[in-house]
Amino acid sequence: MTAIYFNSWLEEYKQPFGAIEKGDTVTFSIAVQESVVEQVLLVMRKEDGEQGVEKINMSPQEELRYTCAYSLEQRAGLYFYYFEILKKEAGQEAEILYFGSNQGKGGAGVLTPALGDLHPYQLTCYEKTDPAPDWYRKGIVYQIFPDRFYNGNPHKEISQPKKNTFIYGTWEDEPMYIKDEQGEIIRWDFYGGNLQGIIEKIPYLKELGVTVLYLNPIFEAASNHRYDTGDYLAIDGMLGDEKIFQQLLDCLHENDMQLILDGVFSHVGRNSRYFNYDGRYGEYEGAYRKPESRYRQWFKFSDYPQEYKSWWGVKDLPEADKENHDFQQFIYGEKDSVIEKWTAMGVDGWRLDVADELPDFFIDGIRQTLDQHPKKVLIGEVWEDASNKISYGQRRQYVFGGGLHGVMNYPFRENILGLLQEKQSAKDTAEKLTVLQENYPADIFANNLNNIGTHDSERIATLLENNFSKLSLAVGLMFALPGVPTIYYGDEAGLTGGKDPENRKFFPWHSIDSDTYTCYQEWTMKRKETEALVQGELYSFYSNGLLGLLRYSKPAQLALYLVNPQNQDASIKELNFTRKPPISTDILEELLSGVVVLAWDDYFVTKDFG
Amino acid sequence: MTAIYFNSWLEEYKQPFGAIEKGDTVTFSIAVQESVVEQVLLVMRKEDGEQGVEKINMSPQEELRYTCAYSLEQRAGLYFYYFEILKKEAGQEAEILYFGSNQGKGGAGVLTPALGDLHPYQLTCYEKTDPAPDWYRKGIVYQIFPDRFYNGNPHKEISQPKKNTFIYGTWEDEPMYIKDEQGEIIRWDFYGGNLQGIIEKIPYLKELGVTVLYLNPIFEAASNHRYDTGDYLAIDGMLGDEKIFQQLLDCLHENDMQLILDGVFSHVGRNSRYFNYDGRYGEYEGAYRKPESRYRQWFKFSDYPQEYKSWWGVKDLPEADKENHDFQQFIYGEKDSVIEKWTAMGVDGWRLDVADELPDFFIDGIRQTLDQHPKKVLIGEVWEDASNKISYGQRRQYVFGGGLHGVMNYPFRENILGLLQEKQSAKDTAEKLTVLQENYPADIFANNLNNIGTHDSERIATLLENNFSKLSLAVGLMFALPGVPTIYYGDEAGLTGGKDPENRKFFPWHSIDSDTYTCYQEWTMKRKETEALVQGELYSFYSNGLLGLLRYSKPAQLALYLVNPQNQDASIKELNFTRKPPISTDILEELLSGVVVLAWDDYFVTKDFG
Repeated sequence: MTAIYFNSWLEEYKQPFGAIEKGDTVTFSIAVQESVVEQVLLVMRKEDGEQGVEKINMSPQEELRYTCAYSLEQRAGLYFYYFEILKKEAGQEAEILYFGSNQGKGGAGVLTPALGDLHPYQLTCYEKTDPAPDWYRKGIVYQIFPDRFYNGNPHKEISQPKKNTFIYGTWEDEPMYIKDEQGEIIRWDFYGGNLQGIIEKIPYLKELGVTVLYLNPIFEAASNHRYDTGDYLAIDGMLGDEKIFQQLLDCLHENDMQLILDGVFSHVGRNSRYFNYDGRYGEYEGAYRKPESRYRQWFKFSDYPQEYKSWWGVKDLPEADKENHDFQQFIYGEKDSVIEKWTAMGVDGWRLDVADELPDFFIDGIRQTLDQHPKKVLIGEVWEDASNKISYGQRRQYVFGGGLHGVMNYPFRENILGLLQEKQSAKDTAEKLTVLQENYPADIFANNLNNIGTHDSERIATLLENNFSKLSLAVGLMFALPGVPTIYYGDEAGLTGGKDPENRKFFPWHSIDSDTYTCYQEWTMKRKETEALVQGELYSFYSNGLLGLLRYSKPAQLALYLVNPQNQDASIKELNFTRKPPISTDILEELLSGVVVLAWDDYFVTKDFG
Repeated sequence: MTAIYFNSWLEEYKQPFGAIEKGDTVTFSIAVQESVVEQVLLVMRKEDGEQGVEKINMSPQEELRYTCAYSLEQRAGLYFYYFEILKKEAGQEAEILYFGSNQGKGGAGVLTPALGDLHPYQLTCYEKTDPAPDWYRKGIVYQIFPDRFYNGNPHKEISQPKKNTFIYGTWEDEPMYIKDEQGEIIRWDFYGGNLQGIIEKIPYLKELGVTVLYLNPIFEAASNHRYDTGDYLAIDGMLGDEKIFQQLLDCLHENDMQLILDGVFSHVGRNSRYFNYDGRYGEYEGAYRKPESRYRQWFKFSDYPQEYKSWWGVKDLPEADKENHDFQQFIYGEKDSVIEKWTAMGVDGWRLDVADELPDFFIDGIRQTLDQHPKKVLIGEVWEDASNKISYGQRRQYVFGGGLHGVMNYPFRENILGLLQEKQSAKDTAEKLTVLQENYPADIFANNLNNIGTHDSERIATLLENNFSKLSLAVGLMFALPGVPTIYYGDEAGLTGGKDPENRKFFPWHSIDSDTYTCYQEWTMKRKETEALVQGELYSFYSNGLLGLLRYSKPAQLALYLVNPQNQDASIKELNFTRKPPISTDILEELLSGVVVLAWDDYFVTKDFG
């Protein structure tokens, strides 16, 4: 231990752990084993700068510690803190030392004499709102890219094929984009999966253990991914219609299953009812073709109609002006708004596409509409740590209360991949888990939608070079970590594929890989049987190259998951926890005594108390 | 009239007109209005040079004519002739003049003092064989590109879609090729037309007046055009199977209709059972993958297996070695040969793809197998005047007897287009018709498959700039000329389109153009009602910018078709016949008296005698 030490993950230095609810008080304690210290200050800065910087004089305690309590009575949001230590040896100039975090991560910090080298610690302050509904927190989600799952029509015919598109000859065909010489997509390619197909596969999904479906967009659109919405108020004709959609909802609910839709509100399709570039919604309709159209104000034209703002410059996706009142009303404000219409029909939650493109007030507006209905959930697509995300120069308020229930947990996926692709150690992995755990409010951490692959990433099997052992560990980690596990359709059947479109193959109904399927199914069962996997607090550790996850749900249950990401067998030696668990070492040692985890294998054990 | 004159189209100069049956005698007569002629010779060269050149001394007659008879007792084939006139004025050197054809065409010839400038006349000598069957000569053919006509499955499902192919979203989609960056086709595109679809549309075809179907290839293949045969002994699974094919044959025959198949024997598909490049017919099968394969000898490998001879260098189409005995046996020689199998099932005729690539003995072999069955027909794809076609340095024997019954009459199409696109006069058109009429044996001329468009050409409507008046004239000319008219599927429904693939749109079942349909239907009726249109000898004429076709079937009927290819109304003035018809001028004048043909319009009249 160095002379001056602080570790935000240990309760003897900071209490309580992690994000703090607004109104609560946090206690800081720093070890300063220096004899000539004149003063130790906690320097606390509210991120938005409104309250400026506070400096709190810490009180010296026994064992050369300085401590102070800090009450978070102000606004929720991000706080950043560090310690300032004033030294003065007799006859010398006073010297100031700074103690902050290691490169912005939590845990053990570093001392520096130069303020310029200092990285403060993050302290997240949130307002408690209704937690996500139980069905979600206990759920096992299954993500379906609707065109690629199943065609439930009696003769596999395509319900309403779109003009000038292509249908794959067989479900086994390799997906591809049909482009012109300039690389532009000139015809959209479809397999013809539809809502009826999902209805017919509910028994399959139940058998797998799935309880929630998350569907990629299903509203009328030109493309196969349907992120280019054509009409927010209509089910895409190839997928079905409102009647079939209601049947899907009813059928899911009868089976105690829920449905999350993809809400794509940042932009619309160029060939939408609203923009209507190619005139498919009428010769003289839409913002592009009718200067006095209601929808013209939804878009930002710099030179009407040819030049307009579009999503990342993709002309096919004109950006909607989220500041526009009419657009807000249409999406979530008015009586028959998009959110209201589908939620009232029975949709249980929404996943907001490119949440970074939606202003906080817009997300809050959606949440408020949603909160008029019981037990709904709102998740956002954010690829990074959403607690400190800055988009377009704004610190995002996603997780501070009243916005999102959780986000898609891509950082977890990267962490799992980093470990299994042998790019980072078990120690690094445990620490990265703890950083996120510290930054997120506990509810958010439990609500995040964990994944090891989506429609926007390469297939997990392919990333792990079709190594089934590694794949099993990735699945295990996803299910053993806090958050809601999400199975990307077909991953459980052994689907492979690199980047888009390879990751969007049709579900291999005729060649489901039974080992992979069994692996997923066993984990869905474990998750359901093991309360600690859902509710339990996480304590990460590493030992002898192994990564360990201890999940503890007070007072009753403990689950231990050990992963050996090495090419050699290993047994536990000393237990290096990033946070000290409230379990006696004896119990853990007893549980792990004699356990040898084979190379690229795992070990799972639970213990019930009382 | 010049001092020396000969015209191969007029009976006072050459008798009989046109091609001569082997064993017959032809009489030549040349007008030589020179007083100092010492000798006039007919110089006759058998094209293959075997018999060398004969010079026949012509006898002087009254009216300063020289004449001789020439008996064609030798082999059938092409003869070329011209006249040599020896002049000698008193006290001067003898002078030789040559009289030959005008640039190789028949009709009025030209005199030249230089042998190097001379173009001899062509004289075709043929052996009479069985004429084509009546069903064919009286027939009205309808060409179907099977993928693009109709899907007869109850739910329009695709029977056996091929792996890694695309199906068009709707029948109205614009056809396109799916190519990679190098311009190579990487996926085949299908609409899903099939044999059941043709069966279901037989009532439609009967109503239109069609009596014969010619189908583009239907055997198993990878592409949508199926010219890349995969298996000659199997119906392509997307089109149906042998049972459905038998139903089609039976259904056609019950309706007094016949079927002609496309025989593609010059090459096979690279991914065929025989070559098996991609292994779809077995890991260790086919010429490419199995050095000791039966099929290896069918192909010419220069560096086995990578380098092989292919059709026009297209690696996807390995060329079959037609000299190979086993291949010959397989196609037409053995008991269950390709030709035998399908002909025995009831196929009424074959159209030989790229006949120029098939040696004469190969075509003769097919014909002999075919002739074992009554009333079969054999047509060849030849784009030029087949009577004098040279391919690969060989004068082709297509039309001299025992080979083809007829060829696809692309020169007629060019002639019709030349007139209606205003690139040539009515006079030029009449003369070009007469050249072909002279060169072809009469049976061949009557057997040729006339067309104004096929799967290999732009749509007639598009070539005529969607001008319905012009289209009507093109249709009229095709039906009024000798030969068997062929409707390219959809032309009668108003389909448009430029070059491949635009000319291969799906049949527009929901938007058949009624004017165009009626035009075709009226002509099929006229053709059936008017014996002279089928059997009648052709006498072409022009008058005042009009093109006239007189069809006369002895002794009973005459049909007259006038076409005005001009932007102004016109009536007949003097009648300029390229051949003198055996009808008195009085009758013709009476028929045409007072007739005014409107701009871009036509006039049709028949007269029965006795």
